[in-house]
Amino acid sequence: MTTLTTPRHFGDRMDEAIQRSGSVICVGLDPRPDQLPPRLRVQDPKNRRELAKAYETFCLGIIDAIAGRAGVIKPQAAFFEELGPDGMAALGSVIRYGTRKGLLVILDGKRNDIGTTAEAYARAFIGPESAWGCDALTVSPYLGQDSIEPFVKRCDEVAGGLFVLVKTSNPGSGFLQDQVAGEKKIYLRVAELVTSLNATRLGASGYGPVGSVVGATYPEQLHELRAAMPTSPILIPGFGAQGGSASDVAGGFDTRGRGAIVNSSRHIIFAYDRPEFRGKFGDDHWQAAADAAVQEMNDQLNAVRSITEHA
Amino acid sequence: MTTLTTPRHFGDRMDEAIQRSGSVICVGLDPRPDQLPPRLRVQDPKNRRELAKAYETFCLGIIDAIAGRAGVIKPQAAFFEELGPDGMAALGSVIRYGTRKGLLVILDGKRNDIGTTAEAYARAFIGPESAWGCDALTVSPYLGQDSIEPFVKRCDEVAGGLFVLVKTSNPGSGFLQDQVAGEKKIYLRVAELVTSLNATRLGASGYGPVGSVVGATYPEQLHELRAAMPTSPILIPGFGAQGGSASDVAGGFDTRGRGAIVNSSRHIIFAYDRPEFRGKFGDDHWQAAADAAVQEMNDQLNAVRSITEHA
Repeated sequence: MTTLTTPRHFGDRMDEAIQRSGSVICVGLDPRPDQLPPRLRVQDPKNRRELAKAYETFCLGIIDAIAGRAGVIKPQAAFFEELGPDGMAALGSVIRYGTRKGLLVILDGKRNDIGTTAEAYARAFIGPESAWGCDALTVSPYLGQDSIEPFVKRCDEVAGGLFVLVKTSNPGSGFLQDQVAGEKKIYLRVAELVTSLNATRLGASGYGPVGSVVGATYPEQLHELRAAMPTSPILIPGFGAQGGSASDVAGGFDTRGRGAIVNSSRHIIFAYDRPEFRGKFGDDHWQAAADAAVQEMNDQLNAVRSITEHA
Repeated sequence: MTTLTTPRHFGDRMDEAIQRSGSVICVGLDPRPDQLPPRLRVQDPKNRRELAKAYETFCLGIIDAIAGRAGVIKPQAAFFEELGPDGMAALGSVIRYGTRKGLLVILDGKRNDIGTTAEAYARAFIGPESAWGCDALTVSPYLGQDSIEPFVKRCDEVAGGLFVLVKTSNPGSGFLQDQVAGEKKIYLRVAELVTSLNATRLGASGYGPVGSVVGATYPEQLHELRAAMPTSPILIPGFGAQGGSASDVAGGFDTRGRGAIVNSSRHIIFAYDRPEFRGKFGDDHWQAAADAAVQEMNDQLNAVRSITEHA
């Protein structure tokens, strides 16, 4: 029944990206001036225009390196915003290039606001016709259900997705998220909202467009939240540099080994500079190093998830 | 003891802005394509470059109109982000112009993230040397205390400010914010964090750099939160179009009638289109209408706050 002009449901697109690539990796694009490969570094990091160009070159190069082995990228808005309007132009270019290479693009912007302002953020980022053209956006829930709904509505219109922060990977995430109100932790309250928003929006994959963010650094909560949100695509940050291991994220997958993607940023994009990679890849082979890092992480993750199907 | 090269403390700068202007108004810059004055509207609102230019012209015109009667502006990031990189260039120009006109500039971006990413957001926006050059930024607390601290640290370095969402003005803000955990509402928990962060950072005004956001639509909570955060500059949205009145915000001021600013966006910037202003000001006199709207709002607010000093 699907025609070429019908936009495809985000939950299904994420599921397909996992199956097509045989990977649950989300490559985080978090460029930093002093970790760029030496040849791409700029003499004066205060020259924002030059640095933005270097970020763009670097991120496009990483996309080229990983596009065959991972299905999802997640540019981090903060590092581009830090460079002002030039950085934002580079971000736009990175998003477009990722899309052209067939990757799902999740912008990590942790945006939110109320009413018509939330609508503006949703229109800004989600969908191919939007100014930034992302497939999905990360969204913060502090303002409540009525601040999330405009994003969901936009996702309905353009077959986009959102990822609501539920239990974040940082050491202090419990400050609000673990508070118990009415015998229920705050993060579980958010999880139930996610599940209810997906209820009437499930794709053929069994997943809805309302994803969630749950840190690899909290494996018990990841188990609990997988059960509480059986229809939500989970984005799992905190793997690698932040301490999460493959066994820590195992609880995030469904019985088919899908339904979640695991983000890694520094460990992949700056793999050329990891001690164990330094011998194998010189500074100029940062793309080969990134490719090898994705392979290694695919091996680790595919070992802990039960893969029942392959496209 | 202050020299010209010492950056001035944000709490003091906000207090001085109120005294100098004799106004507690924060003018929200929320441009929208279909509400621009007719002469500034663009033929094709999908032409983002043209629309961004129109937003810039409009916002600079509003700044010119209100600079004598209000001390603070708050551009809303979402409306500029909606126009992609061109919108961001316009936002940069609006911020710079506001600063040049002597206004305090609070960017309403409701940003946040963890660790080094929060640091990147703080470096991006706060302080005259940052890419965007704002005086302060609004920040969401869902990720916890360790996600707020990088912003505070940045404020220490550049005498900047932040405004933490505490109790927002939307109807559904209670979804998380009003939850009672350990006999304490979540918003009060955030308020106590704000107060503790300010404790060692007070300026001569008695205020710290860690502001807070409390909606005019919740006057009781505003009273409660003024008491819980005696050292926090409060940004009060929700006045006017959202339903908050002058008496609703009275509880936000300290005994000197200061310590809080009240945001109004549409009621001021699109005043030319308000029924009661239409007769007095034609479409081409949108600047005069904005000026008159600020005067009217100043009269309303100054009547409910006890002003004990004037600069």
